[in-house]
Amino acid sequence: MKAAIVTIGDEILIGQILDTNSAYLAKVLDENGFEVEEIVTISDTKEAIADTLLYFQDKLDLVVLTGGLGPTKDDVTKKTFCDYFGDSLIQDEKVYQHVKSLMENFYKRPITQMNADQALVPSKAKVLFNKVGTAPGMLIQQGKTIYVSLPGVPFEMKHLVNEQLLPYLAEQFQPFYNIHQTVITQGVGESLLAERISDWENSLPSCITLAYLPSPGMVKLRLSTHGENREKLKRELSDQIQKLQLLLSDCIVSLNENEPLEVALGTLLTKGARTLAVAESCTGGKVAQTLTAIEGTSSFFKGGAVTYATAAKVAVLGVRQETIDQYSVVSEEVAKEMAVGARRIFKTDYALATTGNAGPQKGEADAEIGTVCIALATPDNVVGYTFNFGQPREKVIQAAVNKTLDILYKKLLKNTY
Amino acid sequence: MKAAIVTIGDEILIGQILDTNSAYLAKVLDENGFEVEEIVTISDTKEAIADTLLYFQDKLDLVVLTGGLGPTKDDVTKKTFCDYFGDSLIQDEKVYQHVKSLMENFYKRPITQMNADQALVPSKAKVLFNKVGTAPGMLIQQGKTIYVSLPGVPFEMKHLVNEQLLPYLAEQFQPFYNIHQTVITQGVGESLLAERISDWENSLPSCITLAYLPSPGMVKLRLSTHGENREKLKRELSDQIQKLQLLLSDCIVSLNENEPLEVALGTLLTKGARTLAVAESCTGGKVAQTLTAIEGTSSFFKGGAVTYATAAKVAVLGVRQETIDQYSVVSEEVAKEMAVGARRIFKTDYALATTGNAGPQKGEADAEIGTVCIALATPDNVVGYTFNFGQPREKVIQAAVNKTLDILYKKLLKNTY
Repeated sequence: MKAAIVTIGDEILIGQILDTNSAYLAKVLDENGFEVEEIVTISDTKEAIADTLLYFQDKLDLVVLTGGLGPTKDDVTKKTFCDYFGDSLIQDEKVYQHVKSLMENFYKRPITQMNADQALVPSKAKVLFNKVGTAPGMLIQQGKTIYVSLPGVPFEMKHLVNEQLLPYLAEQFQPFYNIHQTVITQGVGESLLAERISDWENSLPSCITLAYLPSPGMVKLRLSTHGENREKLKRELSDQIQKLQLLLSDCIVSLNENEPLEVALGTLLTKGARTLAVAESCTGGKVAQTLTAIEGTSSFFKGGAVTYATAAKVAVLGVRQETIDQYSVVSEEVAKEMAVGARRIFKTDYALATTGNAGPQKGEADAEIGTVCIALATPDNVVGYTFNFGQPREKVIQAAVNKTLDILYKKLLKNTY
Repeated sequence: MKAAIVTIGDEILIGQILDTNSAYLAKVLDENGFEVEEIVTISDTKEAIADTLLYFQDKLDLVVLTGGLGPTKDDVTKKTFCDYFGDSLIQDEKVYQHVKSLMENFYKRPITQMNADQALVPSKAKVLFNKVGTAPGMLIQQGKTIYVSLPGVPFEMKHLVNEQLLPYLAEQFQPFYNIHQTVITQGVGESLLAERISDWENSLPSCITLAYLPSPGMVKLRLSTHGENREKLKRELSDQIQKLQLLLSDCIVSLNENEPLEVALGTLLTKGARTLAVAESCTGGKVAQTLTAIEGTSSFFKGGAVTYATAAKVAVLGVRQETIDQYSVVSEEVAKEMAVGARRIFKTDYALATTGNAGPQKGEADAEIGTVCIALATPDNVVGYTFNFGQPREKVIQAAVNKTLDILYKKLLKNTY
């Protein structure tokens, strides 16, 4: 069961928008046992679309196209799709009535020719009725390949995939599963990690594959397998991950990437009925934002102070001017006073604080670019740490956020820190 | 000047991560006059990589590959890249010394074989030295096609593109520019919009193309042109957009989507030597984080309070308990007191505040999910607004951040609010 995803749209080719449709389709097709061999973005032209349909003909079982279906003039997809199969367009009565009713009842205006044309479909196509929009999906099999064309508006595409495409595919293909589990490690670089687990990696059964996914301050290890018996596959992965845990007990921060660090931390705090506040300088609100992006945060997160200016550290958090003068604004001492201040004003059990220089210029404190001091205040004490996360700005901020959350997480697990 | 972008990585094919590298490259190549014909994601296998290199051979001027370069075993890119050109790997001394020094001075451990292998490059390749990581970029021309292989870690890739690849390409190709301007409209559907501007659209010179990019509640209209004289092209687009403005004065909300709102806002504040603070509840730090993600923020942004808990709104910002009791925590009145409090404690000219319910559950205030109240405090007064941004959580938070920044932006432009 091999598949390709084709996105049609100049807005992706010029970098105007991110291709989130392909990522969604890739995930859904993978979960449903398809091996996505290629994801392609092409231009909204007859030649590019026809060439691509031909390129995958009989090589793959499934080709899903998105985009290029809409009422306006820059859409050539439907015509080209129809021509490729030597077919002609006919009006689908159900779609026509749906578009007409949508125009009259929702938009309060009569159906135009441009609207009505949305109901034209290739005569051989299975129509995937689009309840949430005007452009229908279309499905045609030629040779061994099933071709599907879906509108590019994300919520319309998702609706058609879930309500129409997946049920259809489940009838056509035997059940098959791709299973992945991604372990998150922190604090050990990719190559050193690889050395530490090389015996384990070499002993993996051939059906299980391992991938390293490095990002600033973090390496993800993804184990993958596939087959027909979902439970057996999960058990096999889980056995291997137990072995891996013994090898990497000091640096694994999560056994399942679907549970990011902020979720794992939130779970621990909620369980212990403990509360948290943050005081941020160089991370500029990103620690708070990372915590509040997940739902249910309010059970443990009370708030944060983004004291970007030095004066705000003094005025809002009660950092002493003499500490700043003596140690500089980027120092463990200032981070510690920030954490203590945040803990006091938000009345929490714990507080985390960051102060540093994310670059690209040296700041008020003259600290090296990439230097970040992080402090954790607890009911018992306050501790500070200094790191250098290098460059550029974006990486320093992300690495500092990860490390800040990790310090409290490890502390709660009594792992380290 | 035709180009393709190739991303190597199973994590994209299974939908684990979004392909942000391709979007970045697409934008940069487009700006520098390349027509990106295809963006392809393929698997980290010898066959897929070799097939793709061959597919583009002599069809395109430039093929940029990202991903698949790193110290661990799942990387076959470099070997396949080298084999494709019938070349062999040799050690690059400068890269070797850089990796060695990075290991010894930064990671405090001796260089391993796996690290050292990072310094191997095809003998014919121009090496793109990677100051910010261990994997170098590599560039080889064969026939009319220039092939470039870059590491997949985003900040390393960006660094190599800007410091090494673009200067090289500027030497190889005549200057050529692709110019786009995207106008954002709200409140009129795609087909009705198309009818209203059809005369204008039909009268566009053939060198200017128009695309409709619909999304919920919004249609973007992108005008594109290309040629050698950048200023002339910009003038031509600008003339057409002036005409369009007259036709769509009721629904155009922005004449240029390229400059993010936070940058435009920062420029206005810096010019006027005005300062800003924020007080955030439902946006959880994301307004502050959006502002501080850009460099140079410290000239106008003094800080923020993330008062997630109701008690923190009282304790930190001085919101009166009776206001909360009378109007509920999600109300314009509370937002206004938050803004006034933030302006006072951070000593700024302006302060923005958010309070709302981003969902998925109804919160303490019993406000409808999606409700967000936003306030702006200025030296003269404080004003509040109420919006409903629907669902899900992620969309509500992003929409609230955009609207919050927009309120001050429009106010400074004396446009509205």
